[in-house]
Amino acid sequence: MSTPRLVEVRQNVLKQNDLLARSLRLRFANAGVSVVSFVSTPGAGKTALLEHTLSSLREKDLQVAALVGDLATDNDADRLARSQVPVRQITTGTVCHLDASMVEKALEDWDLERLDILFIENVGNMVCPSSYDLGENLRIVLLSTTEGEDKPLKYPTIFNTSDIAVITKMDLASVVGFDLEAARTNIQRVRPGMKTLELSVKTGEGIIEYLDLIVSYVNQKSLNLTT
Amino acid sequence: MSTPRLVEVRQNVLKQNDLLARSLRLRFANAGVSVVSFVSTPGAGKTALLEHTLSSLREKDLQVAALVGDLATDNDADRLARSQVPVRQITTGTVCHLDASMVEKALEDWDLERLDILFIENVGNMVCPSSYDLGENLRIVLLSTTEGEDKPLKYPTIFNTSDIAVITKMDLASVVGFDLEAARTNIQRVRPGMKTLELSVKTGEGIIEYLDLIVSYVNQKSLNLTT
Repeated sequence: MSTPRLVEVRQNVLKQNDLLARSLRLRFANAGVSVVSFVSTPGAGKTALLEHTLSSLREKDLQVAALVGDLATDNDADRLARSQVPVRQITTGTVCHLDASMVEKALEDWDLERLDILFIENVGNMVCPSSYDLGENLRIVLLSTTEGEDKPLKYPTIFNTSDIAVITKMDLASVVGFDLEAARTNIQRVRPGMKTLELSVKTGEGIIEYLDLIVSYVNQKSLNLTT
Repeated sequence: MSTPRLVEVRQNVLKQNDLLARSLRLRFANAGVSVVSFVSTPGAGKTALLEHTLSSLREKDLQVAALVGDLATDNDADRLARSQVPVRQITTGTVCHLDASMVEKALEDWDLERLDILFIENVGNMVCPSSYDLGENLRIVLLSTTEGEDKPLKYPTIFNTSDIAVITKMDLASVVGFDLEAARTNIQRVRPGMKTLELSVKTGEGIIEYLDLIVSYVNQKSLNLTT
């Protein structure tokens, strides 16, 4: 196996990505746009939460937009277009994560200065997106009640590279026997002090607190990321 | 970006993996053991189904064993040990999939000739495991009702590299508004003719048909993989 060479090449690619992410972050700062990304397993509710977020923030007169990554299909962009904000799909083919160059390319002809917040929805994957900085200011990892409480322990890196954990589908918590305290404990074991919210897009539980957090982050550009 | 070189190196790694997987498949055939692997997103119910499968097949006097892959923790191996069959954990660290060399290493001191079926539970990931042949005879992709009907369209490669699709958590189908017909249609759009089963480990729905399928596969070593 030529693993050492692969590792070396992969490290170069990561270094290139990090450099590009840094320049994206500078570009975002200069344009005065906050960038928030969502990572999770497929089906944890990224698109549903994003759709709700875009509509709600638009009603608060914030200028928002989204980039959404998927291997195939532009279903998510179609769904999100209903929120009447600019949305662009990044189709990754067989690539299991977004990287900074995909983000840069997707933004080529966008006037970032007109935006308050740009959201980025990563490909559904609890592993690979961990390694790729997209230049975002805030990374939110979603964990749905239907996945089980043990996932933070099993996929620690994605929690370690995220700023906030959002537990989704709280309306299903009792049906699936989800143990919220165990989930919170597991998140804290992996990343002590991590800010954690619970919500349900379906019932509206926790949504106001979540939106307040996003808005306060944008307003203050500083956030006390403790529980 | 040194992408062309990365692609070249990655292709070499894949080629090495394919060669090793081929030799594993030959070794499995010579030992008379059938190898069945499970792939899915995190939380789709691989471990729950595997636990049930191991106990049930053991009661049918079949010699079964399992390898389970995870980034971190040996929780799954602990859970599966309750079924009183040999179980070994493969901890992948930050690697987002199992590969043939990990399987080979984990089997180093196992007497495969004493086994009827070896199960392999891959890391929870709907993307990366697609590219790695593990030498298995049958690959089963799990899709849970809580993930949504659109996942086959969004993650086509994992369906294209699997033999059977199993829709899990059918007990939650009505609660989450899962549209079974749409899911089946999407699976058939991605992989026409793919055998698809629905089940719930919780209620037992569909479990007999599923176990019969596994046993008939092992008995016949030939399977009519049509719906």
